Amino acid sequence: MFQGIYTPIVTPFTAQEEIDYEKMLHNLRRWGETDLAGIVVLGSNGEFAFLSMSEKLALVEYVIKHFAKDKNVIVGTGCESTGETIALSKAVAELGADAVLVLPPHYYKAAMNDDLLYRHFSDIGDESPIPVFVYNMPGNTGINLSSSLVARLSRHPNIVGIKDTSGSIVQLSELVRDTEDDFAVFPGNAGYLFPALAIGAKGATLALANVLPEDCCRVLSLFKGGKIDEAQALQLKMLEINSIVTTRLGIPALKAAMDMLGYQGGNPRRPLKPLSEEKRKLVEDALRRYGFLE
Amino acid sequence: MFQGIYTPIVTPFTAQEEIDYEKMLHNLRRWGETDLAGIVVLGSNGEFAFLSMSEKLALVEYVIKHFAKDKNVIVGTGCESTGETIALSKAVAELGADAVLVLPPHYYKAAMNDDLLYRHFSDIGDESPIPVFVYNMPGNTGINLSSSLVARLSRHPNIVGIKDTSGSIVQLSELVRDTEDDFAVFPGNAGYLFPALAIGAKGATLALANVLPEDCCRVLSLFKGGKIDEAQALQLKMLEINSIVTTRLGIPALKAAMDMLGYQGGNPRRPLKPLSEEKRKLVEDALRRYGFLE
Amino acid sequence: MFQGIYTPIVTPFTAQEEIDYEKMLHNLRRWGETDLAGIVVLGSNGEFAFLSMSEKLALVEYVIKHFAKDKNVIVGTGCESTGETIALSKAVAELGADAVLVLPPHYYKAAMNDDLLYRHFSDIGDESPIPVFVYNMPGNTGINLSSSLVARLSRHPNIVGIKDTSGSIVQLSELVRDTEDDFAVFPGNAGYLFPALAIGAKGATLALANVLPEDCCRVLSLFKGGKIDEAQALQLKMLEINSIVTTRLGIPALKAAMDMLGYQGGNPRRPLKPLSEEKRKLVEDALRRYGFLE
Amino acid sequence: MFQGIYTPIVTPFTAQEEIDYEKMLHNLRRWGETDLAGIVVLGSNGEFAFLSMSEKLALVEYVIKHFAKDKNVIVGTGCESTGETIALSKAVAELGADAVLVLPPHYYKAAMNDDLLYRHFSDIGDESPIPVFVYNMPGNTGINLSSSLVARLSRHPNIVGIKDTSGSIVQLSELVRDTEDDFAVFPGNAGYLFPALAIGAKGATLALANVLPEDCCRVLSLFKGGKIDEAQALQLKMLEINSIVTTRLGIPALKAAMDMLGYQGGNPRRPLKPLSEEKRKLVEDALRRYGFLE
Repeated sequence: MFQGIYTPIVTPFTAQEEIDYEKMLHNLRRWGETDLAGIVVLGSNGEFAFLSMSEKLALVEYVIKHFAKDKNVIVGTGCESTGETIALSKAVAELGADAVLVLPPHYYKAAMNDDLLYRHFSDIGDESPIPVFVYNMPGNTGINLSSSLVARLSRHPNIVGIKDTSGSIVQLSELVRDTEDDFAVFPGNAGYLFPALAIGAKGATLALANVLPEDCCRVLSLFKGGKIDEAQALQLKMLEINSIVTTRLGIPALKAAMDMLGYQGGNPRRPLKPLSEEKRKLVEDALRRYGFLE
Repeated sequence: MFQGIYTPIVTPFTAQEEIDYEKMLHNLRRWGETDLAGIVVLGSNGEFAFLSMSEKLALVEYVIKHFAKDKNVIVGTGCESTGETIALSKAVAELGADAVLVLPPHYYKAAMNDDLLYRHFSDIGDESPIPVFVYNMPGNTGINLSSSLVARLSRHPNIVGIKDTSGSIVQLSELVRDTEDDFAVFPGNAGYLFPALAIGAKGATLALANVLPEDCCRVLSLFKGGKIDEAQALQLKMLEINSIVTTRLGIPALKAAMDMLGYQGGNPRRPLKPLSEEKRKLVEDALRRYGFLE
Repeated sequence: MFQGIYTPIVTPFTAQEEIDYEKMLHNLRRWGETDLAGIVVLGSNGEFAFLSMSEKLALVEYVIKHFAKDKNVIVGTGCESTGETIALSKAVAELGADAVLVLPPHYYKAAMNDDLLYRHFSDIGDESPIPVFVYNMPGNTGINLSSSLVARLSRHPNIVGIKDTSGSIVQLSELVRDTEDDFAVFPGNAGYLFPALAIGAKGATLALANVLPEDCCRVLSLFKGGKIDEAQALQLKMLEINSIVTTRLGIPALKAAMDMLGYQGGNPRRPLKPLSEEKRKLVEDALRRYGFLE
Repeated sequence: MFQGIYTPIVTPFTAQEEIDYEKMLHNLRRWGETDLAGIVVLGSNGEFAFLSMSEKLALVEYVIKHFAKDKNVIVGTGCESTGETIALSKAVAELGADAVLVLPPHYYKAAMNDDLLYRHFSDIGDESPIPVFVYNMPGNTGINLSSSLVARLSRHPNIVGIKDTSGSIVQLSELVRDTEDDFAVFPGNAGYLFPALAIGAKGATLALANVLPEDCCRVLSLFKGGKIDEAQALQLKMLEINSIVTTRLGIPALKAAMDMLGYQGGNPRRPLKPLSEEKRKLVEDALRRYGFLE
């Protein structure tokens, strides 16, 4: 059973657009010392879409080798075809991953009805040697996985949870209501971490936890400890920086924030551009204004 | 300062499409005996859009005359033009309304930028003799009032709150963070009542409270009393019927549910149709399955 | 049978936001001298949404009285309720209107399925003393009337045409294919006037024809005369100013363009604002660049 | 300079989901005997998203080897990263492709502003050994390439055209207006082939031309020959089957139509499913009703 806070780790690149393993190592060590339950490699914030198949495998191998052994490593393996997703899931299982996180196919979005998506995910559940998380990410895919589809998938013995970035607290509530207690319902954005916990989520997968892992973990422990007012206050404090590094400015801002808080973000890969000086200032201001940076 | 649970009351019509004042009276008496803090007349669920100007005034007059004196009556007065909205707000103030609830103009949605909307609402705030609630209803208007616009409006002395039906718990959180404590941040749908309270809302305006006022009020009192688990459980229990009578089947289903639970829903006005027998069954099943009907 | 070019006329307001009948008269006289087949009063560009019921009736009466007797006057009568739409249609028929143009109800957009919309429009067709045009305007209403619904409606003896502002040339083509020759399929935006004529439209209702009626009419006569290259060239020439006065800057820009080209646009009503000086310059530049202003 | 009708060819698969080269060969021979100007390999209809990198290269090599030498082969090479797109473009140039067709990166759609997209496409234009077509496909990517961005890109010496599947005839008109005569403005859907030609397009890339290449080519020759009425009639005749095999039922329906008209469609790859019997009937009925099948 999966619970606790995870972060979909960024992939630092060198100025020549190569994976910067040195910076990655630095980050892995720091995350390893936090209360994070684990990390997600090849997630959206890891720029998985910009990595070739061989880069993906090399990166996963490296991360598993160098990350804290007592924490989980989940790997994003969603490809457009069912077959390629299964093949990649098998490969990362071989490398020692604890679970896979699978985006729905989305290029042919008009064709992706519930029947077809059900078959896709259950075929993957059947064939993957390790547990499967469903990844609902309408902002990037243009597809929302309905709570009824996910509830149906939750009954597959090898499908163990969902990362839901839809932003709908109602949908998340329906998932809590309609799945068993051991099915992990994880919000996928720190903007509604506390409300999600309040309604029954047991963990989360949060881009913001790349830079503020301890604060994210603290919202969870405060809530568990019944400290509602403090959890609420910390949630409100995190809103602004979270909004900037996720929906407003995205990965380049997240990498810039890492540079400011003792992590090493590095460059993004083209077509993305490093953050402009002006926008970097926005990130810094938000960190200062809410007390994350002195 | 406004707080507590409100319901935007439905308008029952006769088979001849006239306002059915007898049914209205029945409902007003029952709502008057609940813990509701008040009601909203001429809201979306009241089919305000189907009423002529003279029907609106007659209805408001009737409701104020016959509703519990110790509760508030808020009136929906949003029209497309600034001038007509002000005129209607003055008229209902004259009739004894406690506040107005104002939808943004939305027919010319492409033109509705923040500057223009700011002027619209602050002009109304200036001229309305009674306090103004902003009404964010993107599902019907196609316009989302950003939290930064609403925060700016909250500093107008006569703009006292917002009903937010956007469904975004993040946006609601930003409103709690960016407005003073006496500004009423009200979620506009019972699907996320408890998460909204958890993050700091002090009240709500809920279509579901037409039929289940006591349950809606109980979520609030449980939360205030620190009974988090019970509040969560009641929230999950309400999800299905709420979804049916709001987003899925809407007003005709809400009216049907009223008929099943001791209220009198009556018919909707054309172009709406009364609920089909098959869909009425859906409503009934949801009420039974979750224990609201024996 | 309706054909030829119509324009949905703007409503000039004084600085005090009253209807400026003097300016209206000036415009009516000029439009009367053009090749326009007629005008539409109370259309979207006429700010119908900002007019009270009594203003609507007074305006229609004035326009019919003062406009060229040999041209048609169509009146926008769409209200949210079926009943009020019928009542207004009867009233303007009484005043001498030649036809009505009816927007679908759209506030409760989630409820507006084809069955319900079919009943709405056919009830109006049954009761209206004068012919009915269906008005498809998804940009403002959030509802697209499918070609299959409109084809079905076209078989009602009193429903005689459609103004389609969807921008879909495919949908327009389907309407040409699926309706009888005497059903008027009118594009509702000058941006695709020529392609629409090419695929079989026999007329159009164009905001741009408020200011450039002769150019709009000339695209039609060129096409009819087999002068494809010239029609194409004139179409391309009109694109920029059309885009500015419709989708990009809307009514205030259309009014500004009128002031520049010998018409009298006057002010818009609140919440709309008169065009800023900077944007007025954009309008003027587009008119000059493409040779509509020296 | 590119002109004339192209088709983005489907990729037939065996029941075991392998590329069916035998069926491909059959189709290549038939297309080779038509008036098509060329084909597009690895387009959306070719299920490029379901092919591994090595399959892509093998398929391109095979097609170039077996297709008519007097016709063009354009290859879809758009990947999410700029670098991988350049590498694939170089590889297919090496294999003898005549041009590449490049989708915008779209997974991180919120980040894809005009500046970033301009750099992406111009970097590819700089490095690709063969001419580049921009591919605007909002339905699948969620990104619309504005006409101003494309006009700017058209000034790059190695960017020679656009396939625009946006469905906006206005946008297509702006492209004709704002690009040089030798820049190929190609509509990407047969639903508006004739209107696009009327407004100035010189060719097209059409999924429908997989099955009805001669009809598609005939619309072009009729238009060029001044036979407006016949071109219009043929356009209207093609609407229904085109809508079914593209927007309504997509690739599985296109493959089914191929089977009915002497081509060999084969199976789609998972997650897609072969067309159900009931939907196959829809395809057949549309072909019969409009006289494409006896």
